[in-house]
Amino acid sequence: MRHLPLSKAYQLLEPGPVVLLTTAHRGRANVMTMSWHMMVEFEPPLVACVVSDADFSFTALRATKECVIAIPAVELAPTVVAIGNCSGRNVRKFERFGLTPVAAEYVTPPLIAECFANLECKVIDTRLVNKYDLFILEVLKAWRTSPHVPVKTIHHQGYGKFAVDGEVITLKSKMR
Amino acid sequence: MRHLPLSKAYQLLEPGPVVLLTTAHRGRANVMTMSWHMMVEFEPPLVACVVSDADFSFTALRATKECVIAIPAVELAPTVVAIGNCSGRNVRKFERFGLTPVAAEYVTPPLIAECFANLECKVIDTRLVNKYDLFILEVLKAWRTSPHVPVKTIHHQGYGKFAVDGEVITLKSKMR
Repeated sequence: MRHLPLSKAYQLLEPGPVVLLTTAHRGRANVMTMSWHMMVEFEPPLVACVVSDADFSFTALRATKECVIAIPAVELAPTVVAIGNCSGRNVRKFERFGLTPVAAEYVTPPLIAECFANLECKVIDTRLVNKYDLFILEVLKAWRTSPHVPVKTIHHQGYGKFAVDGEVITLKSKMR
Repeated sequence: MRHLPLSKAYQLLEPGPVVLLTTAHRGRANVMTMSWHMMVEFEPPLVACVVSDADFSFTALRATKECVIAIPAVELAPTVVAIGNCSGRNVRKFERFGLTPVAAEYVTPPLIAECFANLECKVIDTRLVNKYDLFILEVLKAWRTSPHVPVKTIHHQGYGKFAVDGEVITLKSKMR
């Protein structure tokens, strides 16, 4: 995994892929599946996400204010679903699903070696946590595998149905 | 366009498609292109979105607290880009781009007939507007064309590059 300029981090999340979120609390790493996230600012990259207070990761995220957003390619889809179908309360997910934790540079939660991109994040605003479980994150460091290797991500349409990235089209645009 | 149960509205936005946002202010409808949005709650469906205060739509959204999220299929991609490349300050976009406004049921901004789904929304929380241009919306009414007609949406990867929905895969999942 190589360093990715922070100015390009939005290009990973803006398309709306299903992602994994790692946390670390009391010496133990955990990971959950997440689809409710969006970009909030380009640079420094800010991200909003919803982590339900019913999720085991909620307590870790709120207490430690750190996480990693790891982005899986389609090949990892069965694992992504399996991760979403159990809880860190009673499963050590990294071990159970054969995920390789890699030390991050700025935060305690691990990167995931099996994901093609990883974003180290800290929580910078919790004003909407109590009402909506909505966290504002700042991306401190971004990693990805070579951008020359094409990657297809997955987009959740509900109940385990995912649209896989298909054709890529390029239109002349002034939009960043 | 038919009524879509509010409980299914999240299935339209959770995959992260590029959408259009219509507003109406001082008797005039406007439309912008938007990729920074996410689901916040299933039911009633709540949505977060970022509308930059540099966008002409920002003033309308903040003042009227109403909008429609219209979801375009890939066939509309050139129009979606063109909408994003000009401002309602100096362009009457509905006329310029041949979009057909349709009266909504609960809000003043129009639905867009050319989009396969439309969500009528009101702003319910503005606490993060000043700092992040982030609005929390409640979906009041959802519309879509027949779900039996397959639709491909587009996902923006930056600078006019879009991933089009490809293969749809279904995995056994307990996730909604």
